[in-house]
Amino acid sequence: MKKIITYDTTLRDGEQAEGVTLSLEDKLRIARRLDEFGVDVIEGGFPASNPKDIAFFRELREHPLSHARVAAFGTTCKKDVDASRDIGLNDLLNSGAPVVAIVGKAWDAQVERALQTTLAENVRMIADSVAYLKQHGREVIFDAEHFFDGLKNNSTYALECIMAAARAGADSIDLCDTNGGALPFDVEEGVLAVARALDEARDLPTRPRIGIHCHNDSGCAVANTLAAVRAGATQVQGTVNGYGERVGNADLLTVIADLELKMGRLCVGFGKLKQLSSVAAYVAEVCNFSVWQHAPYVGSSAFAHKGGLHASAIARFPEAYDHVRPEAVGNSNRMVVSELAGKATIVAKASLMGYDLEKHPDMIQLILDQVKERESQGYSYELADGSLALLIARALDLYEPYFTLESFRVIVDDREDTGALAKDAQSEATIKINVGNRRFVATGEGTGPIGALDNALHMALGEFYPQVYDMELIDFKVRLLDESTGTDAITRVSITSRDENGAWGTVGVSENIIEASWNALVESLEYGLMRIGA
Amino acid sequence: MKKIITYDTTLRDGEQAEGVTLSLEDKLRIARRLDEFGVDVIEGGFPASNPKDIAFFRELREHPLSHARVAAFGTTCKKDVDASRDIGLNDLLNSGAPVVAIVGKAWDAQVERALQTTLAENVRMIADSVAYLKQHGREVIFDAEHFFDGLKNNSTYALECIMAAARAGADSIDLCDTNGGALPFDVEEGVLAVARALDEARDLPTRPRIGIHCHNDSGCAVANTLAAVRAGATQVQGTVNGYGERVGNADLLTVIADLELKMGRLCVGFGKLKQLSSVAAYVAEVCNFSVWQHAPYVGSSAFAHKGGLHASAIARFPEAYDHVRPEAVGNSNRMVVSELAGKATIVAKASLMGYDLEKHPDMIQLILDQVKERESQGYSYELADGSLALLIARALDLYEPYFTLESFRVIVDDREDTGALAKDAQSEATIKINVGNRRFVATGEGTGPIGALDNALHMALGEFYPQVYDMELIDFKVRLLDESTGTDAITRVSITSRDENGAWGTVGVSENIIEASWNALVESLEYGLMRIGA
Repeated sequence: MKKIITYDTTLRDGEQAEGVTLSLEDKLRIARRLDEFGVDVIEGGFPASNPKDIAFFRELREHPLSHARVAAFGTTCKKDVDASRDIGLNDLLNSGAPVVAIVGKAWDAQVERALQTTLAENVRMIADSVAYLKQHGREVIFDAEHFFDGLKNNSTYALECIMAAARAGADSIDLCDTNGGALPFDVEEGVLAVARALDEARDLPTRPRIGIHCHNDSGCAVANTLAAVRAGATQVQGTVNGYGERVGNADLLTVIADLELKMGRLCVGFGKLKQLSSVAAYVAEVCNFSVWQHAPYVGSSAFAHKGGLHASAIARFPEAYDHVRPEAVGNSNRMVVSELAGKATIVAKASLMGYDLEKHPDMIQLILDQVKERESQGYSYELADGSLALLIARALDLYEPYFTLESFRVIVDDREDTGALAKDAQSEATIKINVGNRRFVATGEGTGPIGALDNALHMALGEFYPQVYDMELIDFKVRLLDESTGTDAITRVSITSRDENGAWGTVGVSENIIEASWNALVESLEYGLMRIGA
Repeated sequence: MKKIITYDTTLRDGEQAEGVTLSLEDKLRIARRLDEFGVDVIEGGFPASNPKDIAFFRELREHPLSHARVAAFGTTCKKDVDASRDIGLNDLLNSGAPVVAIVGKAWDAQVERALQTTLAENVRMIADSVAYLKQHGREVIFDAEHFFDGLKNNSTYALECIMAAARAGADSIDLCDTNGGALPFDVEEGVLAVARALDEARDLPTRPRIGIHCHNDSGCAVANTLAAVRAGATQVQGTVNGYGERVGNADLLTVIADLELKMGRLCVGFGKLKQLSSVAAYVAEVCNFSVWQHAPYVGSSAFAHKGGLHASAIARFPEAYDHVRPEAVGNSNRMVVSELAGKATIVAKASLMGYDLEKHPDMIQLILDQVKERESQGYSYELADGSLALLIARALDLYEPYFTLESFRVIVDDREDTGALAKDAQSEATIKINVGNRRFVATGEGTGPIGALDNALHMALGEFYPQVYDMELIDFKVRLLDESTGTDAITRVSITSRDENGAWGTVGVSENIIEASWNALVESLEYGLMRIGA
């Protein structure tokens, strides 16, 4: 298999995403995880711009990665400045990174309007900068900014910039679709043009490889990257989970999976590819995000199937339902339980929880009947894996209740007309529960009634089960199920909770929104405790 | 510009997405919004499978859309069944939809392993089904399931299936990448093969168009759709915001923007394209989601720029930062989704109240500023036309309050552990309001707190304004706006109410769900009274 060099820029371009702020420790953790995964080059940051990045490169000099090469990122020398005296270039050398990536302009309009210098001076800056870094023995990557816009506007000049870098000894020419506007056929055409120019040149110290750097503004970042590889690129840039400015960069994980599973290229190798989903989850966690549910290959929905129609047929003909085996990328066929689902779904779900129901067909029917009964009442287990697990555990008599409720009361008070965003309502919840043979009465306060109940429940349970303090509610959805009956209609509350091991969903249904919320809240803590064996 | 037919399947394939459950009213609202946007064909559902979809088609027969054609979806006749006696095909005809889309198999392995019949019988089913529907004067779309897998495995047979549909008179042959495994060059090759076969055939009643239906499992759904158009497809299927099973369908909005702005094809036209962001927001709101922040073109981050980049730099050379002008798709460099759509809406609403705002641009600006301010607090006016009308009336000093609130208190009591569908909680709401110079204290009871408040409010107001008894709440949606802060996060409650003249929406926002609900409830009655001139 032909090797494709994987170049991760999560720590540099990925950090441009809204909401992503990485500490030094975060950056090191991500770098070490990507190294373990088998990424070839890890771009660590801008050593010229901040002490955190300087410390990052120092740390990796002292405790090197095992496989990946570290890249420092900067720009060509400034206009009218000699490369050897350029502060930025010398910062790159001082970082000690074995690979340096410098971005330079390849779009005539940008040289004139943004850089405000001559086309010739820009070519000089590229050539001198690459040559200077090569003199110091670095692997040099030239990032051609806005290359595809440049090629459309003035192809001769865009290629002249590329060739200046190549003649100066660049090891890789990386074509950047900086504003994300290109479509796959633009990229293919651009890579072919560069490959032709490089192949025809007789004055190159070495034939540089071609790399590709895409953004997703047209919804085509992955496809653009694949198109570049088809046209001859052998280095792919991207970020984990596609993090990046605006709509993000090419998702390096999707690119790797597509290249290995569908285009016969070698990136990290099949043995490592199984880590794909866990890499996605790890980096997301460090960035304080969840993996996007609908992300290709690694999302929790990527191999989820709805409806009994599918669930029963998957075993017979899996290729019809999943484009690749989920195990190949460390994911699994999470069965979405819904009203239509059949026995196969319940068995599969139970087996993921460690219960082998195949031997107990009567139990399958019993659980299925309970699921159907509850679904007819308005429950939905699509997102409520925690509630489904509790239902199965109860049916199998594997569940010992952590507490029993005697009563709760919630009071919400509000005074006078309020302005735009009302904040003056107050809530108070009093719960009476029994844990073992002890009785607890706890009162929680909150702005809203659910928060007050949640506080009271944590207080009452926390004394026996301090683990509940590690569990937090992260999403709360409410849906009225029967439109015809208004406020007293059946209400479904879906809650997503999280602890350090991941997230789970629970559901509550009642004609009373507070009671539905209470039921979902209680199950979220019950399941949270059950899954850690408390 | 060459016209591309846009075919939306949000209401059918989109509803397969986890967490998407659409009521009849939701489906109608989405259909009407897409019609207004200029989508050409709207696939409404499976008339064979459920009463909701049957009602949907009936409703659209009685109150037709203005531009879009409605499509009903089903399958070819069952094996060994005569098309004219097939229940599913007759359900499609009975739906009255002018367009029918039937899915059939084109992958030999699937015919043998899943359908468990002969290859010849499958071809017979396709041909007879298409012919039967054509005999009844319908526009017939043949969806070739797993076409690209079929083409790889047995190209002769895959094309034989296609040609059977074409010979039987299909108006469109839509190639489906059912499991989302194809890459752009697979799609291009497939479309070219079909186009060649169709062009060479001498025995077709008509040359059908080629359509494309993609899923995003390889991260390439949009690019695959564009590749198909480049290769000759003239009909594109997709869903709003890419909603769909697993990782989702091709995002029809991204496809439309790419085709119009980058490939010179006509879908909805530039005048309509400005609605792109508001269509995304509207459909998301009906599905009770947010638009994904990083969605191309329509996401709130799509044209957002981070760090040190100033508006003046963007103004000097906008092409360097944004691949298209954000205004072209109704987005902006920093925006509130409804802001642009806002002016026209505000003018139209005000004119319904008898006030011509065209002559008072300062008032339009004042109202827009208030809308923006409230949107920044979490309000959304996408569905809350009642709340928007009240805001306008207040800004124009045309609104005389029907009552003022002194205080309310809600108590919810619950006893003992409850069974499946808990019904034993009780709620009581006491409100103190002033109507004119009279003070009312009313206590309402209800199963849930919102119902209790609603009852109390009706009792107190009903004595002065008996019309409130004709108004009922028909939908109630709750969304937590800031996931990171759990139960005390800002909560948005959207209510739909109805009287004999039609439905309207109102919105309330608070950190307390009861208070947010109260605010939305109050506005629903206030607007209900205002619109009838009470």
